[in-house]
Amino acid sequence: MLTVGELLIDMISSEYDDKHEGNTYHKHFGGSPSNIAINTTRLGLRSLVSAAVGQDAFGDFLINQLRCAGMDTQGIQRVDGSTSMVVVNKSRSTPTPIFYRDADYQLSYTLLLQELVTQSKIVHFSCWPISREPARQTMEQVLKIAKQHDVLIGFDPNYHPMIWPKDEAGVSYIESVISKVDIVKPSADDADRLFGRDTPENHVRRFVDLGAKLVVMTLGQDGAIVTNGSDMLRFGTMAKEVVDTTGAGDAFWSGFYAGLVRGHSVRKSLTLGFAASAYQLQYTGAIVDLPRLEYFEEMNGGE
Amino acid sequence: MLTVGELLIDMISSEYDDKHEGNTYHKHFGGSPSNIAINTTRLGLRSLVSAAVGQDAFGDFLINQLRCAGMDTQGIQRVDGSTSMVVVNKSRSTPTPIFYRDADYQLSYTLLLQELVTQSKIVHFSCWPISREPARQTMEQVLKIAKQHDVLIGFDPNYHPMIWPKDEAGVSYIESVISKVDIVKPSADDADRLFGRDTPENHVRRFVDLGAKLVVMTLGQDGAIVTNGSDMLRFGTMAKEVVDTTGAGDAFWSGFYAGLVRGHSVRKSLTLGFAASAYQLQYTGAIVDLPRLEYFEEMNGGE
Repeated sequence: MLTVGELLIDMISSEYDDKHEGNTYHKHFGGSPSNIAINTTRLGLRSLVSAAVGQDAFGDFLINQLRCAGMDTQGIQRVDGSTSMVVVNKSRSTPTPIFYRDADYQLSYTLLLQELVTQSKIVHFSCWPISREPARQTMEQVLKIAKQHDVLIGFDPNYHPMIWPKDEAGVSYIESVISKVDIVKPSADDADRLFGRDTPENHVRRFVDLGAKLVVMTLGQDGAIVTNGSDMLRFGTMAKEVVDTTGAGDAFWSGFYAGLVRGHSVRKSLTLGFAASAYQLQYTGAIVDLPRLEYFEEMNGGE
Repeated sequence: MLTVGELLIDMISSEYDDKHEGNTYHKHFGGSPSNIAINTTRLGLRSLVSAAVGQDAFGDFLINQLRCAGMDTQGIQRVDGSTSMVVVNKSRSTPTPIFYRDADYQLSYTLLLQELVTQSKIVHFSCWPISREPARQTMEQVLKIAKQHDVLIGFDPNYHPMIWPKDEAGVSYIESVISKVDIVKPSADDADRLFGRDTPENHVRRFVDLGAKLVVMTLGQDGAIVTNGSDMLRFGTMAKEVVDTTGAGDAFWSGFYAGLVRGHSVRKSLTLGFAASAYQLQYTGAIVDLPRLEYFEEMNGGE
C-alpha cells in the first residue's frame, strides 16, 4: 500500500508543559501517513510513503529512520525548503502545536509516484497534502489515477485550521474531497473542528451525505461507530490498558488496511484495526513495535 | 536607538553534533537585531527592537525575555504565522542551520514604527527583513523616513543564501541597499558569500564603490579594517581570551552605536565597539551581561 502526505520532525518538549515554558525539546520521526506506512510494514505489508523533505540534516534523519524500519524510500522526494516540523508541548490538557511547514507541501506529481499508486491496493492520505499547493494538485492527480485503477482510497480528515492557509475555505475543500474517497475515519475532535459540535450519529450521516462510502468514527474509550450509508454498527473499545493515546488512530488505520489487503471482510478488518489500536495503547510513543498481522488474526478468531 | 529585523527562536543542539544526530535541543532567545537592542540597553541606551512574532507560545516567550531584560516591547508586532525559528547544531567546524521563517517577514509599516524611527538617533537592520515581502517594503519605508529625519542608518550585510527566496537575486538587491545606508559591517564570511573570496582590502573597496559611507570589516583574530572611502584604518583585536565567538559581532555593533549616541567620535566609538566585543568573547552565549558604557569609556581613556 501507499501513503501520501507528511513526513516531518516532531519536536516535543521533554516535560509536561502547557505554555512551552521549558527549554528542552527532543526530535522525533513524525507524520501520520509515515507512521501508518511503518506500522503496516511491521504488520507484514509491502508499504511505501510518498512525501517531500528538505535537503537538510532533518531530511537525512527521517529517511534514515525509514531505512532502519526496513522501508523502501524511493517515494521520498528531496526538495528546496526546510524539512517540515511540528513543535509540540507535552500536555495533560490539549496541546497547542506550532507548525513549521515548508518542504512537505512541495510534493510533486512524478511518473514514479504514478507507478507507486497504480501498483498499490490502497492509497491513504491526510489533510496535509491537500491543504496547500503544489501538493494539492499532486494529490488531485493521485486520486484521479487511483480511481482509474480501482485502487481503494482512504482519507484521514485530520483537519486543523492552523495547517490551512488563512482566509482559505479549508472545510469546503475537504467536503469536496470526501466524495472522491472510499473510506474516511474522522475522530470526534476532527468532526467537531470540521462541522461544529454534534452527536456522532449526526456527524457520520454528514460524511455519508457528502459522498463517503464507508465512515469509521472513532470515539476514544467509547469505541467507534461505522456506517456504509445503510447499516450503522457500533464497536466497543478493545483496549484493556491505556498508557498513551498517541498513535492509536494510526494503529487503527494500519490494522484495518492490513486486514483489507489480506482479503478479510470489512467487518473483520475493522476488528483487526481496533485490535492493533488496543495493542498500541499499551505503549508510549507514536510508533510501537507492532507484531505481524497473524498475531491479531489469531487473537480475534476467524471470519 | 531602534533595531529592525528578526526576533526568533534559536533551537540549538545540546551537544556538538555536525550532522544533527543528537535528539536533544534547547530553545534560546535569538535574532541579531534583538540581541543588539538588549546589548545597547545594558550599555545604557534607550533601545527598542521592531520585529514580528507569531501569536503562539514562542512569541510569548520572546516578548517575556525582552521584558525581563527591561525593554520596552511596543515595537513587537503579533502576526498570523508561527514565530520564526533557526535550528542550529553546535559544531566545531561550520554549523549548518535549518531556517524556519514565517512570522518574522510579516513585519508591517505602521504609524507606530514610523514614530519609533523618527524618535531614534540610529536605525539598525540586517538582511532578514529585506529578504522577503512584505517586510522588504516595510524596510524600504523605514530607510526613506530615516533618511528624511537624518537618522543614522547601520546595515548588517549578514547575507545567507538560505534566507533568500530561491531564484531571487539577493546579492544585487543587497548591493542596491548599500548606497542607502551610512554604516555597513561585513564579516569576512559575509563578504565572501556576497562577492566571492577576495582580500579584505578589495572587499571594503567594493562596499565603498557601492556607496557605503563607512565600512567596518571584522576579521576575527586579525582585528578589523575600516574605511570611509578616503582613509583606511586597521584595528588589532582587543580580545585577550576567546571562550565563545557567538555574538561577538553584535557586541561590536552595540559598543560602537552606544559610543556614537553618547557623542564620541567615530574612531573612539570603533574602539568602544571592539572593547565590547572583546568583553563578550570571554563568555559563552549570544547575549552576555555587558556592563554600562562608562566601564569601556574608562578602560579606553579619553578621546
